[in-house]
Amino acid sequence: MGSINNEIDDINFHVVNPLDPEEFRIQAHKVADFIADYYKNIEQFPVVSQVVPSYLRKTIPQQSAPNAPESLESILQDVSRHVVPGITHWQNPNFFAYFPASNSTAGLVGEMLSTGFNVVGFNWLSSPAVTELEMLVVDWFGEMLNLPKSFMFSGGGSGGGVLQGTTCEAILCTLVAARDKKLKEIGREKLSKLIVYASDQTHMSLQKAAQVAGFSEENFRVIKTTKSESFELSPNSLKMAIQSDIGKGFVPLYLCATIGTTSTNAVDPLDSLCDIALQNGIWVHVDAAYAGSACICPEFRHFINGVEKANSFSLNAHKWFFSAPDCCCLWLKDPSALRNSLSVNPPYLRNRATDSGEVVDYKDWQITLSRRFRAMKLWVVMKSYGVANLRKFLRSHVKMAKLFEELVMKDERFEIVVPRNFGLVCFRLSFNEVDISNAINLKLLEGINETGRAYMTHALIEGMYVIRFAVGGTMTEERHVVKAWKLVQELAEGVLAGV
Amino acid sequence: MGSINNEIDDINFHVVNPLDPEEFRIQAHKVADFIADYYKNIEQFPVVSQVVPSYLRKTIPQQSAPNAPESLESILQDVSRHVVPGITHWQNPNFFAYFPASNSTAGLVGEMLSTGFNVVGFNWLSSPAVTELEMLVVDWFGEMLNLPKSFMFSGGGSGGGVLQGTTCEAILCTLVAARDKKLKEIGREKLSKLIVYASDQTHMSLQKAAQVAGFSEENFRVIKTTKSESFELSPNSLKMAIQSDIGKGFVPLYLCATIGTTSTNAVDPLDSLCDIALQNGIWVHVDAAYAGSACICPEFRHFINGVEKANSFSLNAHKWFFSAPDCCCLWLKDPSALRNSLSVNPPYLRNRATDSGEVVDYKDWQITLSRRFRAMKLWVVMKSYGVANLRKFLRSHVKMAKLFEELVMKDERFEIVVPRNFGLVCFRLSFNEVDISNAINLKLLEGINETGRAYMTHALIEGMYVIRFAVGGTMTEERHVVKAWKLVQELAEGVLAGV
Repeated sequence: MGSINNEIDDINFHVVNPLDPEEFRIQAHKVADFIADYYKNIEQFPVVSQVVPSYLRKTIPQQSAPNAPESLESILQDVSRHVVPGITHWQNPNFFAYFPASNSTAGLVGEMLSTGFNVVGFNWLSSPAVTELEMLVVDWFGEMLNLPKSFMFSGGGSGGGVLQGTTCEAILCTLVAARDKKLKEIGREKLSKLIVYASDQTHMSLQKAAQVAGFSEENFRVIKTTKSESFELSPNSLKMAIQSDIGKGFVPLYLCATIGTTSTNAVDPLDSLCDIALQNGIWVHVDAAYAGSACICPEFRHFINGVEKANSFSLNAHKWFFSAPDCCCLWLKDPSALRNSLSVNPPYLRNRATDSGEVVDYKDWQITLSRRFRAMKLWVVMKSYGVANLRKFLRSHVKMAKLFEELVMKDERFEIVVPRNFGLVCFRLSFNEVDISNAINLKLLEGINETGRAYMTHALIEGMYVIRFAVGGTMTEERHVVKAWKLVQELAEGVLAGV
Repeated sequence: MGSINNEIDDINFHVVNPLDPEEFRIQAHKVADFIADYYKNIEQFPVVSQVVPSYLRKTIPQQSAPNAPESLESILQDVSRHVVPGITHWQNPNFFAYFPASNSTAGLVGEMLSTGFNVVGFNWLSSPAVTELEMLVVDWFGEMLNLPKSFMFSGGGSGGGVLQGTTCEAILCTLVAARDKKLKEIGREKLSKLIVYASDQTHMSLQKAAQVAGFSEENFRVIKTTKSESFELSPNSLKMAIQSDIGKGFVPLYLCATIGTTSTNAVDPLDSLCDIALQNGIWVHVDAAYAGSACICPEFRHFINGVEKANSFSLNAHKWFFSAPDCCCLWLKDPSALRNSLSVNPPYLRNRATDSGEVVDYKDWQITLSRRFRAMKLWVVMKSYGVANLRKFLRSHVKMAKLFEELVMKDERFEIVVPRNFGLVCFRLSFNEVDISNAINLKLLEGINETGRAYMTHALIEGMYVIRFAVGGTMTEERHVVKAWKLVQELAEGVLAGV
């Protein structure tokens, strides 16, 4: 880079060009080995990190950025010493918490390729392959899910899909699109009249999106679900809520229906809900963040029946489709609504391709301008495994969850709290009195997680504390599930002895 | 994974566990070599992709996801054949378009590590290291920038930083925080009274964020800048706009000041703007997306003087700090305003660490719930190069831009349009008549980009079409800059001959 005349020349050290191909090759090989070894040894680490708040500041030697360069070896040593103890190992096969973040070799190398090209694909011109590969893979995925043609680019209509970061973004985008479309009809001053509908099981993403988009609490209608209806959103309750709102002069706007809720994997009855929504001019978004992936298996496809009547549908490929975060797939029947709300076209981005109207500029389909080359990893995942294997993987997870469920059912101290739909089992130590039950199950769960031998999380439904056991880790095998159940039984004994 | 009884067993192929460590090792090595070779040969590709719209659908053989798996070799072959031609090579040393997306070996291997751990760090507990390393690196970075202590965790106050995806998110978050804080004081029904201020040079992110957050066009005040004031936002114009708005019953809310605007790298006079904002209860966000990184060099630090009076400050480490996208650093004096707007705490995420109040849950500092382990790459970049080298890299880019500027100035057919502040040179073939000038410079730029030997983009300022030459690619050396200038001169001759 020529000679730079500043203080650096006085310091006696040398760095090569920071993107020297041969130096990259050497370092990338070392890091590949480091990660491979991490996976090889991953079961040795406690699944959930056992550190205490502020551990890092206390243990790490450097309180400021170093002035001089450090070798990769020394950095990797610091990773092992200081970072790894603070990692909760989502790829550990004994991770059954939250929902899985199932990675894979294909997802990892796909991400490497994406980062390697390191393009910023805001519009078609900035890297045509980013846009066109994305249009291809969302269509491939749509086809695997048997989505109606109206959601696809190749459908011949105006629909299509896009890869966003997370469901939060997908919901925010579609909510804003629905909001602006409606306000264009009824006048912008009516914002405070619009109503967003959800069930009390809907993911917090919707509430957050509504807050960001300027909705008040009074405009956010949370409909109660019940255990007797398996925590599904009742079409009747929705209808009553809508009628009540209309009676008060409100304008129904947006419904988020969920396929596989976070707490219990409830499946909202899409078909009936969409019918009601259609009658009332409501935008229906289907959030299938976790469970959507499973619907590529014909035997699970019925869970999204009715999607053809919805406006938009999303799932997180980084949850249960073997792709590293972030990768949320969003399909829409009418992306023009999104573009109307999210397009901004400054002169410095003007170009012939955009002007021709022949290309998709994905910057107009999302909150942000810049976007990563997410299509690459999804494409590599699909090609590396093929549809038949992807189905096989998903089925194996559901099969393991079923096994766990059967084990729980065989032990009469426990109960299964809700019917299992996918890879999530909700169970608890069974007690009649809810306070005792909740305290006991909390104690049991904390006991499990403190061992570091498995990680599960909880849900609170109708005031009932339940333990969630979510199968979906790529490295999880039957033996891990059986071992986890034995751990639960073993610890239950101690907890029950103390009652 | 045990035997799965479905159609897959009938098909005669085998895949290993999709996250088998040894298979990962083999594939990651191959992909590392593929990327290293890509960098080695990167100058052979046309910088800006020369494909036509829909090229991929026409050339790629598969129109649906394959049923059977494909080998990595075959996938990489497809990448070379079908993807690479559609790539605009942002890492090509002859890329001078937009702003750089300067990657580095450290950024790349940092991203590999992050993807390898593949954790979803929404709250502290979900992976303490993700949160704590992030708190550390934003403080390190803040210290390098000599940000006031009030923006830092280690400042002893309540300030702190966060890593987001892009500036769009940082602006949206802070705008929503400012909006809700103000509405709490004056009543939610006053949303339509709030005014957002920007200059006509402010990045489109702000307009997009305002649209998402529910602001109408009438609430978005764009203040005109002029060439005679180097396209800086004039404090006087701001003051007059504010007074006029107050007179009409509006409520000033938010100002986005820019350090290094997109079109010309103008630097808004932060100190004076903040004084006016402070007097009027306006939240000031400082967008230093591109130029902020350079301010780690003491000689450029003066450009952000006055930041101590602002509310928030952001820059994109993926632009000019050798980190792969996405990585926007946002610092705030009062993150509680952000948390008040963006916190949602469902029962299923409740945990002892959060309840203790001793930890940061970054999900409350951003639009989305899920978040990638972005701190890893930034930490690896800082450690791999050290502050002294990072300054050296940045200075070398500025020095090369200065060289280009000098070359332009020596050729009297050309003019430098605005004073150069950082690594961006704005120039054009000089003509008195604006229409001819614009047509000629457009023709020149298109000619340059069609050669594939360099990629530059344009800006339109005061109706004047100018060519932007942005130096910042990690692999760019003096020889590339000189060659690019020779190309400009060579093509100018042809263009001028046709006038």
